Amino acid sequence: MTVYSSLFSDPEAAEFLSDRALVQAMLDVEVALAEAQADVGLIPRDAVEAIRTAASIEHIDLVVLAHEAAAAGNLAIPLVRQLTERVRHVRPASSDYVHLGATSQDVIDTALVLQLKAVVPLILGNAKRAADACARLAERYRTTPMAGRTWLQQATPITVGVKAAGWLAALERGSLAVRERSETALVLQFGGASGTLAALGSHAQPIAAALGKLLGIPVPAMPWHSHRDSLLRLACAVAVLVGTLGKIGKDIALLAQTEVGEVVEANASDRGRSSSMPHKHNPVGPAIALAASLRVPALLATLLSSMPQEHERGLGGWQAEWETLPELIRLASASARSMADTLGRLHIDEERIAANLDVTRGLVMAEAIVVRLTPALGRSTARAIVDAACERATTDRTSLADALQADRRVVGTLSPDEIRETLNPENYLGQAAAFVDAALADWRRRRTEHA
Amino acid sequence: MTVYSSLFSDPEAAEFLSDRALVQAMLDVEVALAEAQADVGLIPRDAVEAIRTAASIEHIDLVVLAHEAAAAGNLAIPLVRQLTERVRHVRPASSDYVHLGATSQDVIDTALVLQLKAVVPLILGNAKRAADACARLAERYRTTPMAGRTWLQQATPITVGVKAAGWLAALERGSLAVRERSETALVLQFGGASGTLAALGSHAQPIAAALGKLLGIPVPAMPWHSHRDSLLRLACAVAVLVGTLGKIGKDIALLAQTEVGEVVEANASDRGRSSSMPHKHNPVGPAIALAASLRVPALLATLLSSMPQEHERGLGGWQAEWETLPELIRLASASARSMADTLGRLHIDEERIAANLDVTRGLVMAEAIVVRLTPALGRSTARAIVDAACERATTDRTSLADALQADRRVVGTLSPDEIRETLNPENYLGQAAAFVDAALADWRRRRTEHA
Amino acid sequence: MTVYSSLFSDPEAAEFLSDRALVQAMLDVEVALAEAQADVGLIPRDAVEAIRTAASIEHIDLVVLAHEAAAAGNLAIPLVRQLTERVRHVRPASSDYVHLGATSQDVIDTALVLQLKAVVPLILGNAKRAADACARLAERYRTTPMAGRTWLQQATPITVGVKAAGWLAALERGSLAVRERSETALVLQFGGASGTLAALGSHAQPIAAALGKLLGIPVPAMPWHSHRDSLLRLACAVAVLVGTLGKIGKDIALLAQTEVGEVVEANASDRGRSSSMPHKHNPVGPAIALAASLRVPALLATLLSSMPQEHERGLGGWQAEWETLPELIRLASASARSMADTLGRLHIDEERIAANLDVTRGLVMAEAIVVRLTPALGRSTARAIVDAACERATTDRTSLADALQADRRVVGTLSPDEIRETLNPENYLGQAAAFVDAALADWRRRRTEHA
Amino acid sequence: MTVYSSLFSDPEAAEFLSDRALVQAMLDVEVALAEAQADVGLIPRDAVEAIRTAASIEHIDLVVLAHEAAAAGNLAIPLVRQLTERVRHVRPASSDYVHLGATSQDVIDTALVLQLKAVVPLILGNAKRAADACARLAERYRTTPMAGRTWLQQATPITVGVKAAGWLAALERGSLAVRERSETALVLQFGGASGTLAALGSHAQPIAAALGKLLGIPVPAMPWHSHRDSLLRLACAVAVLVGTLGKIGKDIALLAQTEVGEVVEANASDRGRSSSMPHKHNPVGPAIALAASLRVPALLATLLSSMPQEHERGLGGWQAEWETLPELIRLASASARSMADTLGRLHIDEERIAANLDVTRGLVMAEAIVVRLTPALGRSTARAIVDAACERATTDRTSLADALQADRRVVGTLSPDEIRETLNPENYLGQAAAFVDAALADWRRRRTEHA
Repeated sequence: MTVYSSLFSDPEAAEFLSDRALVQAMLDVEVALAEAQADVGLIPRDAVEAIRTAASIEHIDLVVLAHEAAAAGNLAIPLVRQLTERVRHVRPASSDYVHLGATSQDVIDTALVLQLKAVVPLILGNAKRAADACARLAERYRTTPMAGRTWLQQATPITVGVKAAGWLAALERGSLAVRERSETALVLQFGGASGTLAALGSHAQPIAAALGKLLGIPVPAMPWHSHRDSLLRLACAVAVLVGTLGKIGKDIALLAQTEVGEVVEANASDRGRSSSMPHKHNPVGPAIALAASLRVPALLATLLSSMPQEHERGLGGWQAEWETLPELIRLASASARSMADTLGRLHIDEERIAANLDVTRGLVMAEAIVVRLTPALGRSTARAIVDAACERATTDRTSLADALQADRRVVGTLSPDEIRETLNPENYLGQAAAFVDAALADWRRRRTEHA
Repeated sequence: MTVYSSLFSDPEAAEFLSDRALVQAMLDVEVALAEAQADVGLIPRDAVEAIRTAASIEHIDLVVLAHEAAAAGNLAIPLVRQLTERVRHVRPASSDYVHLGATSQDVIDTALVLQLKAVVPLILGNAKRAADACARLAERYRTTPMAGRTWLQQATPITVGVKAAGWLAALERGSLAVRERSETALVLQFGGASGTLAALGSHAQPIAAALGKLLGIPVPAMPWHSHRDSLLRLACAVAVLVGTLGKIGKDIALLAQTEVGEVVEANASDRGRSSSMPHKHNPVGPAIALAASLRVPALLATLLSSMPQEHERGLGGWQAEWETLPELIRLASASARSMADTLGRLHIDEERIAANLDVTRGLVMAEAIVVRLTPALGRSTARAIVDAACERATTDRTSLADALQADRRVVGTLSPDEIRETLNPENYLGQAAAFVDAALADWRRRRTEHA
Repeated sequence: MTVYSSLFSDPEAAEFLSDRALVQAMLDVEVALAEAQADVGLIPRDAVEAIRTAASIEHIDLVVLAHEAAAAGNLAIPLVRQLTERVRHVRPASSDYVHLGATSQDVIDTALVLQLKAVVPLILGNAKRAADACARLAERYRTTPMAGRTWLQQATPITVGVKAAGWLAALERGSLAVRERSETALVLQFGGASGTLAALGSHAQPIAAALGKLLGIPVPAMPWHSHRDSLLRLACAVAVLVGTLGKIGKDIALLAQTEVGEVVEANASDRGRSSSMPHKHNPVGPAIALAASLRVPALLATLLSSMPQEHERGLGGWQAEWETLPELIRLASASARSMADTLGRLHIDEERIAANLDVTRGLVMAEAIVVRLTPALGRSTARAIVDAACERATTDRTSLADALQADRRVVGTLSPDEIRETLNPENYLGQAAAFVDAALADWRRRRTEHA
Repeated sequence: MTVYSSLFSDPEAAEFLSDRALVQAMLDVEVALAEAQADVGLIPRDAVEAIRTAASIEHIDLVVLAHEAAAAGNLAIPLVRQLTERVRHVRPASSDYVHLGATSQDVIDTALVLQLKAVVPLILGNAKRAADACARLAERYRTTPMAGRTWLQQATPITVGVKAAGWLAALERGSLAVRERSETALVLQFGGASGTLAALGSHAQPIAAALGKLLGIPVPAMPWHSHRDSLLRLACAVAVLVGTLGKIGKDIALLAQTEVGEVVEANASDRGRSSSMPHKHNPVGPAIALAASLRVPALLATLLSSMPQEHERGLGGWQAEWETLPELIRLASASARSMADTLGRLHIDEERIAANLDVTRGLVMAEAIVVRLTPALGRSTARAIVDAACERATTDRTSLADALQADRRVVGTLSPDEIRETLNPENYLGQAAAFVDAALADWRRRRTEHA
C-alpha cells in the first residue's frame, strides 16, 4: 500500500499488484512446478508437500529479499534462496527439488501472467460499469439537443444521447480488444536457462503441459523469454482503453466548467472538496482519468522501446518492464474505476444545456439556415448571406434571427415561421437518434452474449 | 521525396504517403462524395463529372495550399477552395456541389484511411518476406548448436534454428495483428459539422453507404471524429511489429560484431561501406530497424496522449496526429523492408558459431554437467562441485573438462567419455528442434491458408 | 517544402531545416575542412578552390543522394562521392583532398550544429515577441479582476495582468535556458574514424582549431560522437519552452470557448474559418501550440532513449536522431511563431470577464468572506457559516450575498456594506499587482541588457 | 519500501522519497507556515508549538490518508484534516491556525521541493564517484590501445583511457547541469487558492519570506502553481545524466560480453550470479543503468506533456506529476549508484583487449595504411590498394600485412619494417592522450574548486 494506492489505482487491483501478491504468485509458480514434476515422476511427491508448506509469503522476509535482489539482479534468485532454505527446514531432503530446471525468468514472467489474469477482469468490470452508465445516458437523452463543439467552439447541435453513445461505443470496442489480447498474452512462460528446457530432458514438454494446467493458463508453442510482443499487444489494448477513458474524462471536465455547467457529479458529498474554497467541488474522477491518459502512453512507450531484448534474455529491456507494466495496469484500473463512478453519478443539467445552446443567439444554427436557403438561392449565395448575417449579429449583439430578418433575400425566401423553425436545434439533429440506436443495439447484443 | 526517403521508408510506401498522394486521396474523397450524392439524387450527375475533371493533383498549387493551411488550420479548407475554384472554371454551375454536407475532418480522416489501405499491405508484404527468410533459416539450421546468450553472457546452447524460429513466430503473430486491426480501423469517416450529418437530412445514411462502397471501405455504425481508438489499435499493432523487427535487428547486429562474427550480410557489396575505413561494412539494415524501434514507441505515445480529443473535434490532439501517424507507418515500412532484405541475404558462419561455443572452454556446459551429476550426488552437491570446477577453470585458464577431471567425486561418478559426451553441446539442445518444428508448422499452415 | 510546412513550422525555420539546407551545410563543412587543411599546409590551396566551386547544392542530385543513402546508411558517404566526382570534374588533381581525415559523423553532426545555429535564434525571436505581448497585457490589465480557475472550476479572483505575468515570466525563463544551452551545445564535431583524429597526425588539433574558426563555432575539449548530452540539454530546453507555449495556448483556447468568451484573436479575418459553419473561428494558434506540446515530449523521449550509443559510434541511436531533432526544432519554431502571433493580436473582452466573475453569484468570493469573518468568529465557525451559505445559495439559486444576509451570525458581525465590499473581487486581489510588477521589472531588465 | 527498492533505487534516496518522507515533508511545511505566520504576528506563538507537536508522521494514519485522498483528489486535504484533528487534541484553540491562507498545492509542491533538495545531492554524490572512477581509468590506461568500434564493428584503434575520458567528461557536464538546475528549481511554492495570496492580506509577502527562510529555500518572484518549467528543467538535467549513465552501462555490458571479455566487475562475488548456470555472472550494474535509460525518457515525456496545466491549477497534468517525478528521480539514483559501484570495481583485461585488437589480423589498421601510402601514391590509389588487400585478407583468411606484402605498389613504397610499424596500433592513436589530458585537467579543476 502506498499513499497513492486509492487515488492512482483501483484498491482491489492494487492488492493483486502488491509486492506480497507478486511474491506469492512467484511462490505459487514454484509449487506448481514441483507438482508438475511430481506428476511426471521426476521428483518425489513428498517434496511437493514440503515446497507447498514452505511457499507462503508469510515465510518470506521481504526486506532481505529486496536487499538481495539488488545484487542478484532479479527477485527470483533471492526468493528461491529463501524458499530453498525454508524447504530445507521443513524437510531437508526436499530442498534439492526447488525451482528444478527453471530459470528466473520463467518464474517472474509466469507470476506476472497470473497477476494480470486477476487484475484485467477488474479493469474490464469497471469499463463495463462505465459503458452501462453511458448506455443509460444515451437512452435517456437520446434526442436532448446540446451544443456540438469542435475546436472548443460551438459548432452545430448534437444530442446528449449521441455524445454518450460515442463514449459507449468506444468503451465497448476498447473492452473487447482488452479481452481478446489478454487471451493470447496470458500464457505460460517456461523455457529454462536459454529457452530449450534442456535441463529437463525428455520430461520437458509433459512438465510444461502439467504446469500450464495446474496454473490454469495455456502453454504456448515455444517460450517467449525475449519476445514480448503478445504481452505488448495486451498492454497496447489497455493503453487505448485508457485513452478512451481520458477522452470521456476530458469531455466531462469541460462540461463541468463553472461557465458551462452542463454536468455535475451528483451526491458527491465531500468528493473533490477544496481545502480553502467552500464553494468548490473538483472533478476528481476526470482528473484521475486524464492523469492516467498522460502517464500510460509514456509507460507503453517504455515497454515498446524495451522490446529489442538481446538474444535469449535481455539486458535492460526486460528489467525495464518489471515496474512499468504493473504501473500501467494499475493506472488503467484507477481510470476505469474513477470513470465508472463518475459516469454512474453524472447529473445532466438540461436547463444549462438549453441555455448554452442559446448563448450565441442562434449562430450555432448558421449551417442549418445555409442548408435551408440553398435550394432557392444556391449554396454560395446562401453562404454569403448567412456569413453577413452572422457578422451583423455579432457586431450588433443581436440574434441571428433578427439579422436574417434584415436581409431581403432571406425574407423573400422564408417566412418568419420558417426561419424560426429552421433555427430550432430540435429540427437539426440529423442522424443523432439513429446513431444512438445503433450503439445501444450493439451494446445490448454484447450484454446478451455475455450474460 | 526527402533525402531520407529511402533510408527511413520503403520508397514504395513513401510514395503512398507523400504530399501528392495525401492531397490526391483527399480529392478522391471529394469526387466520391459528389458521386454518392448524385447516386441518391441530391446533386446533378453533371456536377460529378465537373468535380472529377477538376479534382486532380495536377490542378492544385501545393505551395498556395501549404501557405493557406497555416491560417485555415487544416488542409481541407484551402483544398476545397482551390477545388471549388477549379470546378467553377470547368463548369460554373457545379461549383456549389463541392464538399456538400461534409466537414474537413471527413475528408482528412477518410483520405488517411485510403492511404493506410495502400501502405499497410506493403508492410505486411515485407514482414512476410522477413518471416519466410526466418523460416528457411529455422529449417536449415534446425539443430546447429549455437551459444544461447542471456544478459549478453553465454548461457547454455541453443540452435541457430530455434533462434530463427523465435523470430519467425513473433513476425507471424505481429503480422496477423496488423491485418486484424487494419480491418477494423480502415473505415469511412463521415459525419459533417458535428457528427450528425444534419446538413444532408434524410439523404445522410444512403450517401454514407454509397460513399463507402465507392471508396471500397466499410461504413461504421457512427462517425468517429473524436474517438480515435480503432485507429490507435492499428497503430499499436504496427508499433509492436516494429518492436519485433528491432529485436531481430539487435540480435543480428550483436551476432555481426567483429568479435562475434556469427552472421554477415552476404553479397552486400557497397552496402554499409565506411567513408574512411576500407575494411568496414556497417550493418545498415539492423540500424534502420533499431532506429525505427527507438522512434516508433514515442510516436505512438504522441498518438495515445492525443486521444482525449475535446467534444466533437479536438483542439491540438487531432492536429498532432497529422504528421505523426504517417511517420510511424513510414518508419514501420522502412524497418520491415530493411529486415526483409537483411534476413534474405544473411550468411551464417557455422565455423565462428562453433568456435564461439567453445570460447569458454566448456563453461557454457556447466548446467548440463550439474544435471548429469544430480541423480548420483544430489543437486546441491552437484552444483557445489561444478561451481568449484568453473571457478578453477577460470582461474587456471583450463577447460571445464580438465577441471572436472580433477574432482574425485566427478571421476567417481562419470567416466571420461561420459564427461566428454555431457559437455558436447549437441547433446544438450533440449526442445530446440521441437520448437522449430512447431513454429514451422504454424508458418506453413498460415501460408497455405493465405495461398 | 511539405504541405504542412507553414502549419507545423515557422516557414523561415523550415527553410533552414530543409533537405537543401542540410546538404548545403554538409558541403559547407567539407569546404571549411579543406580550407582549414590548406591553412595548416596539409593540402594545396588550389584544392580548396576546386572544392569550394564544386560544393554547391546546385551540383548535387538529391534523388541519387537519397537512393544511395539507403545502402550507405548515412547521407555523408553518397554526398562525398558526388562531391568528389564533381571536384574531379573541376580539377582532377584536387579530388583526393575531399573529406580528408574526417568521418561521416563529423560532417553530419557539424552540419546539424550549423543548422541549429541558424534556427534557434528564430525560435528565440518569436519567444521574445510572445513575451513582449504578454508584458503589454500584464501592464494594461494589471488590476483587472478575472476569475481564477483551478481544476477548471472558478476559485478566487486573480487579475488578467497576473495571468499574463505568469506567462511572461515562464517565457523569459524558457528563452534564457535555450540561449544558455545553445551556447554549450553548438560546437564543432571533429574526430575522424574513431574520435582520435589519428589520420591527421600532428596536424589534427591545428586543423580542428581552424575549422572551428572558419565555421564560427567553438572547438570542444574532445569529440562527442557517441556522447550526445550537450545536444540533448539544448533539445530539453527547447522542449520545456514548447511546454510553456502549450500551457499559454491551452489557457487561451479555454478562455476563447464560446461559453467563456474572455479572449478572441482580433483581426483574424479568415484565420480559423470553418469550411461548413459561417459563424465559427477556430483558435488555430493555440491548436498549433498544443499539438506541438503533445508531439515534442515524445520526440525528446526518442532522443533521450537514443543516448546510450554504442562505443565510438552508435547503431540505431544516432540514426534515430537524424529526423527527430530537426522535427522537434521545427515544431518549436511553429509553436513560438503561432503563439507570438496569437498573443500579439489577442483581444481581451473585459465585459465577458466581468460577467463570468459574476456567474456564480458571489460563490467565487466564498474564501474572502471566510477570511473576513474569521477574526470575529474563528476560522472553523466562519468556514461552517460560509459552507452553509454556499450550499443555500446553490440550492435556492440566489446570490451568496443574500444567503449570507440570512445568517444571523454574519449579520451580527458585518454590515451590509461590509458584506458588499468583502464580496467585491477588486478588494480581494492579494499580491496580483505586486507579482505583475516583479515580472515586468525582470522583463525590462532583460530587454535593457540585451538592447 | 518495495521489493524493488534496492534494485531500482539508491536505498538512501528511496528513504527520502518514501511515503513517510513525503508526508513528513508536508507536515514540515505546515509547521514552518505556522511559524512564519507567528513571526509576522498573524497567529499566536503557542499555536506553532501545538502544530509542531502534532505534525509528526507518527500521528498520521497513512491508510486513512490514502483512502481519503481518493475522494479529496490530493494528499493535502486529508492530511490537513488529520493534522487539524490532532492539533485540536493537543490544544483546541490552535486548530484554527493550521494551513492558514495556503492551498493544497503550496504544501504538496513545497514538500516535493524539500524531498528533491535531499535526494539530488545523493545522485550528484554517486555521479561524482562514477566520474572519479572514470578519471582513474583514464589516467591509468591513457595510452593502452583498444579497438575503437563504430556501428558495433571494429573501426580504428583508440585507447582505454580516451574511452574513459569520454565517460568522465560527459558525467562532469551532466552533474554540473543538475547542480545548476536544482538551484533554480528548488524554490518555495506559496500562492494560496489562486496564486495571489489574497487570504493573507498585507502579511502575504512577509510570511512568504519567513517561510522560505525557515525551510531553507529561496522565494521566487511569484508562485508557479501551473508553470512547471523550472521543475521540468531540473527533471531534464537529471534525465540527460541518466542517458549518459546508460551509455556508459551499455559500453561496459558490450565490453563484458563473453566473446569480448575486455572488462569484468572485480570482486563481484555473488553479484549477478545465475540461478541455474554456475559459470555465469550477469552485469547487474549496467542492466540497472540501461533499464533506467529506457524508463526515464518516457517519464520525462509524461512530465513535459503534462506542462499545459489549465489556468491557475491543472486538471490531470499536475496530478500526473505526483508519482512520475519521484519515480524519475528514484531511477536516476539507482542508475548513478549502480554505475558508481560498477565503475569503481571494473577490472580491465589488457590481454583480451590486445587480443581483440588483433582479431581482424590487421584490418583494423586499414585506414592507417591508406594514410601512410597517400603521400607517395595519392589517396584514391592508396585506398584502392588497401581495399583490395582487405578483400584478399578476408577471403584468404590471412593478415593484412601479408596481403599488403603481396602488392607490388605497397612493397615499392614501404619497407616491411615500415609496414609493420604502420600496422602497429600504438603508432596510430592520434590525439587520444591529449584528449585524456584535457578531460583530466578539467576534472581536477572542478574537484579543486569544490574542495
